[in-house]
Amino acid sequence: MVEAVETMDGWYSLHDMRVMDWTSWKLASSEERTAAIAEFKNLLTKWEDVEEAENGSHVMYQAIGQKADFMFMFLRPTMEELADLETAFNKTKLAEFLIPSYSYVSVIELAKYRPQEDGVDPETLPETQARLKPILPKWNHMSFYPMSRRREGNDNWYTLEKDARGKLLYEHSKTGRQYAGKVKQFISGSIGFDDMEWGVTLFAHDVLQLKKVVYQMRFDEATARYGEFAEFFVGNHLAKEDLAAYLHV
Amino acid sequence: MVEAVETMDGWYSLHDMRVMDWTSWKLASSEERTAAIAEFKNLLTKWEDVEEAENGSHVMYQAIGQKADFMFMFLRPTMEELADLETAFNKTKLAEFLIPSYSYVSVIELAKYRPQEDGVDPETLPETQARLKPILPKWNHMSFYPMSRRREGNDNWYTLEKDARGKLLYEHSKTGRQYAGKVKQFISGSIGFDDMEWGVTLFAHDVLQLKKVVYQMRFDEATARYGEFAEFFVGNHLAKEDLAAYLHV
Amino acid sequence: MVEAVETMDGWYSLHDMRVMDWTSWKLASSEERTAAIAEFKNLLTKWEDVEEAENGSHVMYQAIGQKADFMFMFLRPTMEELADLETAFNKTKLAEFLIPSYSYVSVIELAKYRPQEDGVDPETLPETQARLKPILPKWNHMSFYPMSRRREGNDNWYTLEKDARGKLLYEHSKTGRQYAGKVKQFISGSIGFDDMEWGVTLFAHDVLQLKKVVYQMRFDEATARYGEFAEFFVGNHLAKEDLAAYLHV
Amino acid sequence: MVEAVETMDGWYSLHDMRVMDWTSWKLASSEERTAAIAEFKNLLTKWEDVEEAENGSHVMYQAIGQKADFMFMFLRPTMEELADLETAFNKTKLAEFLIPSYSYVSVIELAKYRPQEDGVDPETLPETQARLKPILPKWNHMSFYPMSRRREGNDNWYTLEKDARGKLLYEHSKTGRQYAGKVKQFISGSIGFDDMEWGVTLFAHDVLQLKKVVYQMRFDEATARYGEFAEFFVGNHLAKEDLAAYLHV
Amino acid sequence: MVEAVETMDGWYSLHDMRVMDWTSWKLASSEERTAAIAEFKNLLTKWEDVEEAENGSHVMYQAIGQKADFMFMFLRPTMEELADLETAFNKTKLAEFLIPSYSYVSVIELAKYRPQEDGVDPETLPETQARLKPILPKWNHMSFYPMSRRREGNDNWYTLEKDARGKLLYEHSKTGRQYAGKVKQFISGSIGFDDMEWGVTLFAHDVLQLKKVVYQMRFDEATARYGEFAEFFVGNHLAKEDLAAYLHV
Repeated sequence: MVEAVETMDGWYSLHDMRVMDWTSWKLASSEERTAAIAEFKNLLTKWEDVEEAENGSHVMYQAIGQKADFMFMFLRPTMEELADLETAFNKTKLAEFLIPSYSYVSVIELAKYRPQEDGVDPETLPETQARLKPILPKWNHMSFYPMSRRREGNDNWYTLEKDARGKLLYEHSKTGRQYAGKVKQFISGSIGFDDMEWGVTLFAHDVLQLKKVVYQMRFDEATARYGEFAEFFVGNHLAKEDLAAYLHV
Repeated sequence: MVEAVETMDGWYSLHDMRVMDWTSWKLASSEERTAAIAEFKNLLTKWEDVEEAENGSHVMYQAIGQKADFMFMFLRPTMEELADLETAFNKTKLAEFLIPSYSYVSVIELAKYRPQEDGVDPETLPETQARLKPILPKWNHMSFYPMSRRREGNDNWYTLEKDARGKLLYEHSKTGRQYAGKVKQFISGSIGFDDMEWGVTLFAHDVLQLKKVVYQMRFDEATARYGEFAEFFVGNHLAKEDLAAYLHV
Repeated sequence: MVEAVETMDGWYSLHDMRVMDWTSWKLASSEERTAAIAEFKNLLTKWEDVEEAENGSHVMYQAIGQKADFMFMFLRPTMEELADLETAFNKTKLAEFLIPSYSYVSVIELAKYRPQEDGVDPETLPETQARLKPILPKWNHMSFYPMSRRREGNDNWYTLEKDARGKLLYEHSKTGRQYAGKVKQFISGSIGFDDMEWGVTLFAHDVLQLKKVVYQMRFDEATARYGEFAEFFVGNHLAKEDLAAYLHV
Repeated sequence: MVEAVETMDGWYSLHDMRVMDWTSWKLASSEERTAAIAEFKNLLTKWEDVEEAENGSHVMYQAIGQKADFMFMFLRPTMEELADLETAFNKTKLAEFLIPSYSYVSVIELAKYRPQEDGVDPETLPETQARLKPILPKWNHMSFYPMSRRREGNDNWYTLEKDARGKLLYEHSKTGRQYAGKVKQFISGSIGFDDMEWGVTLFAHDVLQLKKVVYQMRFDEATARYGEFAEFFVGNHLAKEDLAAYLHV
Repeated sequence: MVEAVETMDGWYSLHDMRVMDWTSWKLASSEERTAAIAEFKNLLTKWEDVEEAENGSHVMYQAIGQKADFMFMFLRPTMEELADLETAFNKTKLAEFLIPSYSYVSVIELAKYRPQEDGVDPETLPETQARLKPILPKWNHMSFYPMSRRREGNDNWYTLEKDARGKLLYEHSKTGRQYAGKVKQFISGSIGFDDMEWGVTLFAHDVLQLKKVVYQMRFDEATARYGEFAEFFVGNHLAKEDLAAYLHV
């Protein structure tokens, strides 16, 4: 029987995409709009406090295209905190003008494909902990997509031996490393939580690097034969101080 | 010809997911909201009475992400009681603010893959009856997903001999047993009732165990070659006494 | 070239599923609701008259789950009568509160796989005519699902010789006959009329038998290798005299 | 490299399916409804004038089932005229009560699989011109479905040699010819215009012949191995003079 | 390991399709409509200024069929400018009457399959720069469709060697060149940006050439075995000066 791989798991993750209802927003009074923005900026400030206390992290991007206008990613130590955050968001005035269009539930994940060295559990290492509970970068651009590993005929990831999978992923990681400093990648596991198996979140200073890395990786055997994809989202960073301008009508 | 397996069947099951319409909820008057919550809590109490009398069971969870806010699972001895329950729910005031987003109809099921011992019909055993008519746990977390067995080319579950299927499922169950005490699993059959073939409902104290068990099981041949999946839902337990706070706006 | 099979065709069929809009229904005045129910019961009576005159048949079931609340099946001698019936239904007051959620257009069909005996055309036999123009049973439970025959790689129904298909269907029918008296099955052809190739409508006194027969049949080669499925609907019989109680708010 | 086949192309085609919003229609005043019908009948008369001048053609059918209530097919010499027609339709009062549910854009097409005889370009023949710019029949029943040719593993239409394709289509056409006088078929190409590759529109006096021909053709190798299907629509002819009765509420 | 191909990338691209809400448009006052058109024509003029300054390009087409009424394609040097353009569009009065129905995010792309000659980087050539930052033609007709390269069993584009891919694409380009002067094609890459891998935008004087080129290309091995398609859109050029007439009600 094929051996599964052990995972190390960190903060719980919610990707939350919403479409702005500009028509209703314009119908609201100027006072309502101002109050809605002020309330939401307060919430953003609370989230920033959580981030400063290293009890979680979040980002806000402006998505391009009709699939979403706002693209959030939230990280929290527990699923309860994630749910509370989502509920608080949903109860805001601004949320009345934001039509939910997509979400994804997962948990930051690292796989233990490489053998343990010197009897040290890698999960105890500070660098591992930093990767499992990351403060998300606020780089210019973000791309998100869920993915699964294929189980079809001769291309069945889950019937490959652990070593074979580890080798394919190691090759795959070498492609990623060519983009060090240009693209930052976060993998979150969602088996049992959401419809696909993993979420991939990428950040880049230069948006073109997002296309280049995903394109190049498509030729890695791990992706070419075993990658399954669905939706892709891309957006530009939206700073709290730019929110009012973006929402000005 | 391949032999089917006999099943033992217990209580009928309805999974019922709904999205909260916060905007309309806020537009309702405070009195309306209070009345809606009180009415729904009365209904919950009635359902609790049914559960105490061991005439059915139910759970209420808060789903994470946009696919649902409320996640219910109802068990009843007959499809008629299930329909009545659903109708009563639909007629409540609160239901006016809950947008149906997903449901699943099935019946708690156990398969008779193992040979009968000593001429005793396993269905007559008290432990079997308890598993067929279970009181659902109110553990912290719940995951639900429908699944089917694959019928594609060389990966066709329904052309495997009964013994071969039984062996694959036995291996599969050994993975499950590693999570004893951590994850509680309920299988409900839905062939002829709903779009996929089975529903899988998992409960856990620690939400991470839900991911771990479903991930590990994906490497079992029964899943790797023969499992087909669609939607996954995950949520946190929502106690009756926390409902008003959750709905407070 | 593979030979097609001749079919005998009877009454035209419309499956019509609708979701009840309880919120709007409650907003209607008590008078409106009473009038809507009375008008619809009149329509039901007219349909009963048609059935008594053996000029058609129909059933009304309460579906379980969110896919529908009302599940109708209508049979009429011509597509024109079916269209008129649908239009009359759509123009009722009650229809203003019923959101169409699914429909299926087909015609009751029997295949002539078995050789003709003694030069008698089976279509002329009274028992055949009764099966082609059936009065639908009002048994406790109903299940409906559309299906197609697979055309994929080595599993291509339409490249099998007529004899091979006939043999597979004969084996398949033996499974069905084990449920004689427990499950009543109607097959309606929809090639050229609707998205799948056939509709299958099952009636049972005991709802569990619906699951059992569909499950057991899945192991028949005709289904295991050649069956393609999509939606499944299940419901409980709703008598005209129970309509007002069901709709009472 | 496989050789494509040359096509002869005629009038541009728009299939336009719409669902009647009976609830809003009933809310309109009797005057509004009368005016809407009168205006639409005027438009129908204009389209009839175009048809009489042999500058285009159109049909109006009442679809069965929930996918549509109105089913139109429009033919025009240019895509510009088709767009103008669609815009004029959309601006009518009646269109305010018709919810668009499906459309298909294509062009009447004939393939030049057979070798050219005697140096005569078949496109110049009057009978070819008549088939490319047809006046659509107003027979009792109509069926429409889009289709594509399969490109999967060993069943890849587009890797077959032109002769092999021509032979398969010739066999296929022989099935069609058995329905001469009973079923009239129009093929329109949509590669580059809409989601599938061709539209198939069938007309019949007896609706059963629509099912029979599509069923029988499914056993032709051209369909069994290479046909891909999606939606099917069926309806009854709706004459201009019956429009007011159909819309009477 | 298979070698990826380097790409040259130019302006960022947004395809933006919208359905006209004619009912609401007619409900607006004549003044509102006039103001909405005037404001939108101003925006079009601003976009024309950008185009004249060669800082971007755009086109406006009237789509045929229900999938869209307006079909825009926007090109800008940065994703930020594209987002700003989209936001400005969304804030217009006219946008209140335009229901978003489809969008696609990509970047104009050329692949470096052919070896570099004489040590000259092709990206530095003026003709390359012109192709990467093109002023879009305003020809009579436009077709847009997204596409991906297949990764299935033996038909896996991403496991082909670079030379083999280059050869297939070279053969493919020869088909395209037969349409020189008749069809103008723009390829934009969307891996990591949107759901498919590339967008294909075609312009033609004669709409039939759009069908002919896509049809003929389907027989190229690059498409027959490796092309995956989804939606197709087609439309007629809509000049700024024809906008008011088109929107007149």
